[in-house]
Amino acid sequence: MTNERLNTPTLAEIGEKGVIAAIQEVAPSMINGDDAAVLTIGPPNTRTVVTTDMLVENRHFKLDWSTPEEIGHKAVVQNFADIQAMGARPIAVLMALSAPPSTRLSLVTGIARGIYERIQEFSAELVGGDLTAGNSIVLSITAVGSLGGSQPPLSLNRARPGQSVIACGCIGYSAAGLDLLKKFGRDHVPVEFLKLVRAHCTPPLMPDRGVVARATGATAMTDNSDGLITDLTTIADRSAVTIELNPAAIEPDHRLLRAAEVLGTDPWKWVLSGGEDHTLLATTTGENVSGFREIGRVIRRGTDPVTIGGEAPTWTEGWKSY
Amino acid sequence: MTNERLNTPTLAEIGEKGVIAAIQEVAPSMINGDDAAVLTIGPPNTRTVVTTDMLVENRHFKLDWSTPEEIGHKAVVQNFADIQAMGARPIAVLMALSAPPSTRLSLVTGIARGIYERIQEFSAELVGGDLTAGNSIVLSITAVGSLGGSQPPLSLNRARPGQSVIACGCIGYSAAGLDLLKKFGRDHVPVEFLKLVRAHCTPPLMPDRGVVARATGATAMTDNSDGLITDLTTIADRSAVTIELNPAAIEPDHRLLRAAEVLGTDPWKWVLSGGEDHTLLATTTGENVSGFREIGRVIRRGTDPVTIGGEAPTWTEGWKSY
Repeated sequence: MTNERLNTPTLAEIGEKGVIAAIQEVAPSMINGDDAAVLTIGPPNTRTVVTTDMLVENRHFKLDWSTPEEIGHKAVVQNFADIQAMGARPIAVLMALSAPPSTRLSLVTGIARGIYERIQEFSAELVGGDLTAGNSIVLSITAVGSLGGSQPPLSLNRARPGQSVIACGCIGYSAAGLDLLKKFGRDHVPVEFLKLVRAHCTPPLMPDRGVVARATGATAMTDNSDGLITDLTTIADRSAVTIELNPAAIEPDHRLLRAAEVLGTDPWKWVLSGGEDHTLLATTTGENVSGFREIGRVIRRGTDPVTIGGEAPTWTEGWKSY
Repeated sequence: MTNERLNTPTLAEIGEKGVIAAIQEVAPSMINGDDAAVLTIGPPNTRTVVTTDMLVENRHFKLDWSTPEEIGHKAVVQNFADIQAMGARPIAVLMALSAPPSTRLSLVTGIARGIYERIQEFSAELVGGDLTAGNSIVLSITAVGSLGGSQPPLSLNRARPGQSVIACGCIGYSAAGLDLLKKFGRDHVPVEFLKLVRAHCTPPLMPDRGVVARATGATAMTDNSDGLITDLTTIADRSAVTIELNPAAIEPDHRLLRAAEVLGTDPWKWVLSGGEDHTLLATTTGENVSGFREIGRVIRRGTDPVTIGGEAPTWTEGWKSY
């Protein structure tokens, strides 16, 4: 996948100014280019929401498996899911990148292009960043969001018994995609599994779902980044409730079953402990929140923070940095 | 300098949750701990200002020369100088860190403590971050600022002929400190040069100078991060003016002269191309801006973007990432 890039100059050859100019060409912004970025004023009562995520080569992505554009996409999704999980709307992104001097320019412009493509869907802007030499490729993205109105943000500690648990997006796809990549490599994954691989390399994220959920009765939200059970456990523990998942609502679909068959693994592992789907998970008093489906209920705190059909989950281990 | 830290566990031993808990202990914040940080609402008409900087071990800092606390300090100063350079007030910081699993916990808590100590001076808060394993230590800091009022921010393109050029902070000290560290190592730098070494390892930055300058007639501002001539050239080029420096106002002081004598180098190199002082540099119609001194004038655009006593500078090369 890297051959096409060998013709472009290296970062050392083109120099810092040249690299920055190339980034600004693929991700134009009127705000970018001063010491810091000044964002436009929101309506009165608007709060600013910020989050940051760091992606390290060969840990969070592999250039054999993902194009630079996909790495940019994924970095945006990771951060924008966190912004949405507060009930806020993403408005801006900063991109800090460390890369060896021998890195091809097209890798950097590809990441920037991927970021630009993805943030366009959210009407957000790449407003600034930093570029530095280093031994490895490390991408650090900061997202800025805007939280309007006087309602509280969607926090981890506001799930209440009686609410329904809702999800927007697939669950387990990213982890299945990763296992398929490990087994087959990007170029040889059977075509029937492309959607799973794509969920890993460039996960989907619908705009405005956090805002809509907050407007229709959601109180707690997070995204499935570390694993369904891990992330729901955080909500359950912080809110002192138990989350009871409906097994029928989360059971592996035909794609996951088929992939599990080919790989000889348990598809529930992907569903329960997979992570990196960045599916939005909320608790709400509202019904039929657009884009979401019900996957469970919030009940009074019992022995386990999260149960599936009343039983403790079979897989609980999630993604860990260390 | 690292012996005292050998007793603390490694990041792998304590695990991600333990590391995060330890960070939150040294840098407590009520805002930190959700998917994203929701900042408090500013007065109406307040704009949000954001900037990011990435520090790579052995490129931006060396653990032989700097304590973890000093690395935290410097990371804050780099970012807060950029916020101030817009005329804004820093209010929050995010800290993303990549470090090998064998890294000692005390390194991470030391950096966090340094960040916390420094942002306290600005009444700012460490509101979130990310932690991930990686081959090298990479620290990525994002600062958020608040820009009040309806006046425009202090941008690079608003210097005007007739203004005076003013500076807040020392010029050339950081580069001299770096050369002294290269020559002697941290533990053997002669005591008379401690102020220069400290300017490199934990550069000073006065709070509120950007706000004060904006309130008293400044229109353009930057900080001396890449080198005096490089950074003023950016203002001069973007504003289509020439900046005429007064040599008497920037000439090397007794400390720089003495260090240059010991190292057998030209102290003007530190002053003109040193960088990393994070001294605030502004152009203003105001007089006696508190904390600043006049170092030159803005005149109509001539042949050179920056002159010293009417002549082209002898040293122009600044810090480059590539």
